[in-house]
Amino acid sequence: MRILVTNDDGIRSPGVQVLAQKMLELGDVVLAAPLEEKSAIGHGITIRDPIRVRKIKVDGVEQAWGINGTPADCVKLGLAELMDHKCDLVISGINCGPNMGTDVLYSGTVSAAIEGVILGIPSLAVSLASWDSEDYTDAAEIVNRLVKYLLENKLTLPRGTLLNVNIPAVKKEEILGYKVTILGERQYENRFEKRLDPRGNPYYWSVGKLLPFTEETLDYDVVAVEKNYVSITPIQFDLTNYKIIQEVKDWGLENL
Amino acid sequence: MRILVTNDDGIRSPGVQVLAQKMLELGDVVLAAPLEEKSAIGHGITIRDPIRVRKIKVDGVEQAWGINGTPADCVKLGLAELMDHKCDLVISGINCGPNMGTDVLYSGTVSAAIEGVILGIPSLAVSLASWDSEDYTDAAEIVNRLVKYLLENKLTLPRGTLLNVNIPAVKKEEILGYKVTILGERQYENRFEKRLDPRGNPYYWSVGKLLPFTEETLDYDVVAVEKNYVSITPIQFDLTNYKIIQEVKDWGLENL
Repeated sequence: MRILVTNDDGIRSPGVQVLAQKMLELGDVVLAAPLEEKSAIGHGITIRDPIRVRKIKVDGVEQAWGINGTPADCVKLGLAELMDHKCDLVISGINCGPNMGTDVLYSGTVSAAIEGVILGIPSLAVSLASWDSEDYTDAAEIVNRLVKYLLENKLTLPRGTLLNVNIPAVKKEEILGYKVTILGERQYENRFEKRLDPRGNPYYWSVGKLLPFTEETLDYDVVAVEKNYVSITPIQFDLTNYKIIQEVKDWGLENL
Repeated sequence: MRILVTNDDGIRSPGVQVLAQKMLELGDVVLAAPLEEKSAIGHGITIRDPIRVRKIKVDGVEQAWGINGTPADCVKLGLAELMDHKCDLVISGINCGPNMGTDVLYSGTVSAAIEGVILGIPSLAVSLASWDSEDYTDAAEIVNRLVKYLLENKLTLPRGTLLNVNIPAVKKEEILGYKVTILGERQYENRFEKRLDPRGNPYYWSVGKLLPFTEETLDYDVVAVEKNYVSITPIQFDLTNYKIIQEVKDWGLENL
């Protein structure tokens, strides 16, 4: 069993290091993560610049590489150059902060796992729903249990689909269980704050607050996590809206 | 009718300028695009750095703004600060090069249009399937006809869905028509070229070539464009794989 571990918070962040250490219980681990924080960068890849790889010292993890690229770059380069295309599982995380609802589109953590399934490897994205937790031990334990269960029961997803896991940031004994969910919404006010720099030139900060989500059932990831369940959402990279295809065909565009 | 025009090739690229000029026939246009090229950056947003806005001279387009951010930033800031949240349509493009199949995930052009629908505005992404065309006049004419048709016939998509349009790079008279399509696949070899810099340190270039797509029906965007049809794909930002939810629920994870 060969596992590629990556993230978007950077290789120095505790979440990815604890995860890599824990995954050693399940197999060989290659940790390949960005040298710098790459949050909210979405599914970027580096095609016009060279990519560098540097060996990093991480306790217990012999194969730990810092990469000056995006999370998707780490998966691509990790698989091709560091693992010789031999990999059974990609796990991205444990992210500092949740990646739920519409936010998954912006998430480097999720994009790394999407890159994994694009390349045909079963993949997971894992996030801890707290912006200031320093302790990822319990979360890594949960990932470990989940991955073991999937392996032991030979549970596999169709090509192009991965699991997006979000873990509530509460004590282990307060977690009520696991829920299979669909993505909810994370809508933000679209608001900027305008300031003037010391030379009188304007600049803007994105400041939009999260708007409340009105659904209340545990079917949604955001609700499940809020109610202290580990949320597991099967997501896919195919953006086609199949439900609407026939309707759009009936619009007569093809006779334009 | 107020239209926000953006792209990911940057405000100096001919594709976005010709598009903005053409859209003036349909209403007021605000052109808000990245100051620099931002291809293959996916759905990134800028949250940790300030964003600056600079007035740019573009023939015939009074409201033209260069922004030191991502395409999604341009849509967010353009709507909030340059249009006072009053916008009827977001058009992103005309991209230099196709955005089809799996590639839409990496596309800044498509991510800008996705940001548009996240913010509740009908949106289109438009790409010309050529990497070296300098003439976007015919493509802009096609966009114009399409948008006019949608408006005149009051054709609207459900919330969260947008149209991804790809135009073959052939002479106007060679275009065979329009096809409503689903996303095909654009798989690349996952390959890097390793080099040594003058100081003997290694670096890598992503060099993977596009693999052939085996489907041949016009139902797929990549096939339709190859066969000289304008491809129109309804895509959505909800990544949930609904088809698999029940199966994953039956895995017993909830009793873990």
